[in-house]
Amino acid sequence: MSSEHRDTEAPNHDLEAEMRRLASGAREASARMGELDTQHKNAWLLRAAERLEAAREAILDANARDVAAAAEKGVPEPLRNRLGLSDAKWNDMLQGLRDVVALPDPVGRIHNHSVRPNGLRVGQMSIPLGVIAMIYEARPNVTVDAAALCLKAGNAVILRGGSEAIQCNLALGEELRAAARDVGLPENAVTLVPTTDRAAIDVLLKLDDSIDLVIPRGGPGLIRKVVSESTIPVICHDAGVCHVYIDASADKEMAVAIVHESKLRQMPVCNGLETLLCHREAAQTVLPAVLKDLHEAGVEIRGCARTREVFGDAVAAEEADWSEEFLAPILAVKVVDDMDGAVEHIRRYGSDHTEVIVTNDYAHSQEWLRRVNSSVVGVNCSTGFADGFQLGLGAEIGISTSRLHAYGPMGLEGLTTKKFVLNGEGQLRG
Amino acid sequence: MSSEHRDTEAPNHDLEAEMRRLASGAREASARMGELDTQHKNAWLLRAAERLEAAREAILDANARDVAAAAEKGVPEPLRNRLGLSDAKWNDMLQGLRDVVALPDPVGRIHNHSVRPNGLRVGQMSIPLGVIAMIYEARPNVTVDAAALCLKAGNAVILRGGSEAIQCNLALGEELRAAARDVGLPENAVTLVPTTDRAAIDVLLKLDDSIDLVIPRGGPGLIRKVVSESTIPVICHDAGVCHVYIDASADKEMAVAIVHESKLRQMPVCNGLETLLCHREAAQTVLPAVLKDLHEAGVEIRGCARTREVFGDAVAAEEADWSEEFLAPILAVKVVDDMDGAVEHIRRYGSDHTEVIVTNDYAHSQEWLRRVNSSVVGVNCSTGFADGFQLGLGAEIGISTSRLHAYGPMGLEGLTTKKFVLNGEGQLRG
Repeated sequence: MSSEHRDTEAPNHDLEAEMRRLASGAREASARMGELDTQHKNAWLLRAAERLEAAREAILDANARDVAAAAEKGVPEPLRNRLGLSDAKWNDMLQGLRDVVALPDPVGRIHNHSVRPNGLRVGQMSIPLGVIAMIYEARPNVTVDAAALCLKAGNAVILRGGSEAIQCNLALGEELRAAARDVGLPENAVTLVPTTDRAAIDVLLKLDDSIDLVIPRGGPGLIRKVVSESTIPVICHDAGVCHVYIDASADKEMAVAIVHESKLRQMPVCNGLETLLCHREAAQTVLPAVLKDLHEAGVEIRGCARTREVFGDAVAAEEADWSEEFLAPILAVKVVDDMDGAVEHIRRYGSDHTEVIVTNDYAHSQEWLRRVNSSVVGVNCSTGFADGFQLGLGAEIGISTSRLHAYGPMGLEGLTTKKFVLNGEGQLRG
Repeated sequence: MSSEHRDTEAPNHDLEAEMRRLASGAREASARMGELDTQHKNAWLLRAAERLEAAREAILDANARDVAAAAEKGVPEPLRNRLGLSDAKWNDMLQGLRDVVALPDPVGRIHNHSVRPNGLRVGQMSIPLGVIAMIYEARPNVTVDAAALCLKAGNAVILRGGSEAIQCNLALGEELRAAARDVGLPENAVTLVPTTDRAAIDVLLKLDDSIDLVIPRGGPGLIRKVVSESTIPVICHDAGVCHVYIDASADKEMAVAIVHESKLRQMPVCNGLETLLCHREAAQTVLPAVLKDLHEAGVEIRGCARTREVFGDAVAAEEADWSEEFLAPILAVKVVDDMDGAVEHIRRYGSDHTEVIVTNDYAHSQEWLRRVNSSVVGVNCSTGFADGFQLGLGAEIGISTSRLHAYGPMGLEGLTTKKFVLNGEGQLRG
């Protein structure tokens, strides 16, 4: 993914210097951000919403230029749809800023307080991570959402959105920075990478003296590149190959409803259902109704041999289907002998995202919750609940499939860390 | 640090295959480890202690061969001291295994339980991280300590100790694996890297499909290498350039006692004091007594100009002293104008480890705890409390200076992560 600029010395050198300058500006801003009280951060959120509203026309113009350029370059329609800022997306984006005002500020909160036998009082205080770099796809609303959450948690953020969104992102970034100046925050708390040169990412990923965390959000190519090259800690917001497992004891109506919603609620999202697993007994009693419902809703069923025995409209699944994130009206279906078979399948093909069992067997519900170690594991509910808002985090910057630090939906607390604080009165270890 | 083996194709290829085999064995073992209840893990700890006791002579022989080989190679004495297993270290190591039995098992515990408006019950369940690779210096007791903690938290561990300790480590590893077989645990839950070839580390650091976390513990060269090359998440157990700041209001006796213990309790440990900062007012009233006490105890004082004005026996500090982890009877001392000066100094030269203020000013105590973002921040206590046992974690695998996941002393809980668990009764998002 490195660009042609790498071949020539001079431009690459300039780019490196420029990226270093941006990162060290963000580092300085983060020191001040970490000391701000909640009121100041909220003032920025509200001012940013005002500023964006006032600049609406110019920003939408920039967005229209991005969309036109993408169309000219032959960018596929789904990507262009994500790129375009509709009225609904615009309003959600602004409402998002105001909603973050209402979220409790995690910074300074004390956790796990205890008193040691010598009277030393020990707690863990939430503090900002520092500087967070987000590398994401061409959705300009993510620019605003990510900045809001990172700053509310006391961090500085460096944003590098998809190159197709560059005009709009720069326009948004200008307003977010101006809002910072207006209310006395360091403007470098929000930094937009001003170039679409991919070599900028190569440089960014090595700046571990200035950046504390990289969050890549996008396709497997981007994620792999970041994991391979970054010397900065990485939390991946990766693919979701989510499963529902219909147990032998599953209620038929419930299974139909949960599978229906998990597959069809919103298809191009990572918490959507991609592979349905079914106990061999339920394959006779429950599966046909579940698949008939989906098939009638226009979903293509790709089944194993045993699936095709009970549902004639299924086409034959291929090996590659088991690890595919379709994000489309396609469902892979496999009949397994028992829970071991389901757990084994998920371990082999899953992406550590979200797995739900439909069961009325108490022991099986407990076994599922204990044995399946994906980031979200559920009993008798839609996979769509794998979402920061739904789980009560108030907001989410994404869904982490990395086990370190934050696993699953990642909210404000995931953007902080905890230091130990010790209140003594002269204690020595002696 | 890569070895000459990298130049020739065949041996490197063999090494890579061998490391892959070890890592995928550990991965398989981790799946079983994650499902074990506490009793089985405790049985292994007790059996391991028995096995080590029975094999004591052979292990100490192996250790003696390591020490002799190190002496022959001219390895410096401090390192040879760390390498040697004294009776005291042996007993501590065995007692350590038994102590871990008593620690509560973090796996399966539910945190942050809540009920959503739709009745969905949400919690976060602690689960093992998976496979942990430890790369550490030539202290064979770490082999046993690290294995005990990693396995108690349900992980598999791959251990790569300093090459000087290889004979002893392999002997210890054999017993730890045999103990696993004895009690029905997968023996690959403990894997010793069987070669001292440094190229093995190069391979290991790229196996992100089998290994979930790398913990390097050692000098800056090793830490830098791991951070730069690893595609696996890294938590560094790095240097401690720890500070005590004597505020204007500090009690003189308390300042003398805290500085004395922080510097002298145990010098070659990372939570020892390395740089003393002192408010300009306390430089007149408190500092001379503090430094006189240390000087009489044989500590070399390297002071700034203002320090040398109030304490004639100080030599002039050089720029490099401010970032030095002496681990020796040397102390750098700087007089600052106020807390801003102290905070600024720590930000510039510190290592995010441990910083203590001595003060009797309430506002300053709060400001210190809020503003200094090192992993352990204390008021009126010894820096020696930066320790997992002292802070109530029960044990520690090290002290993390990485902000992600675990910051500061890292105990059993730091060796786990949390998945979301959802108990529904048919809930849909609708």
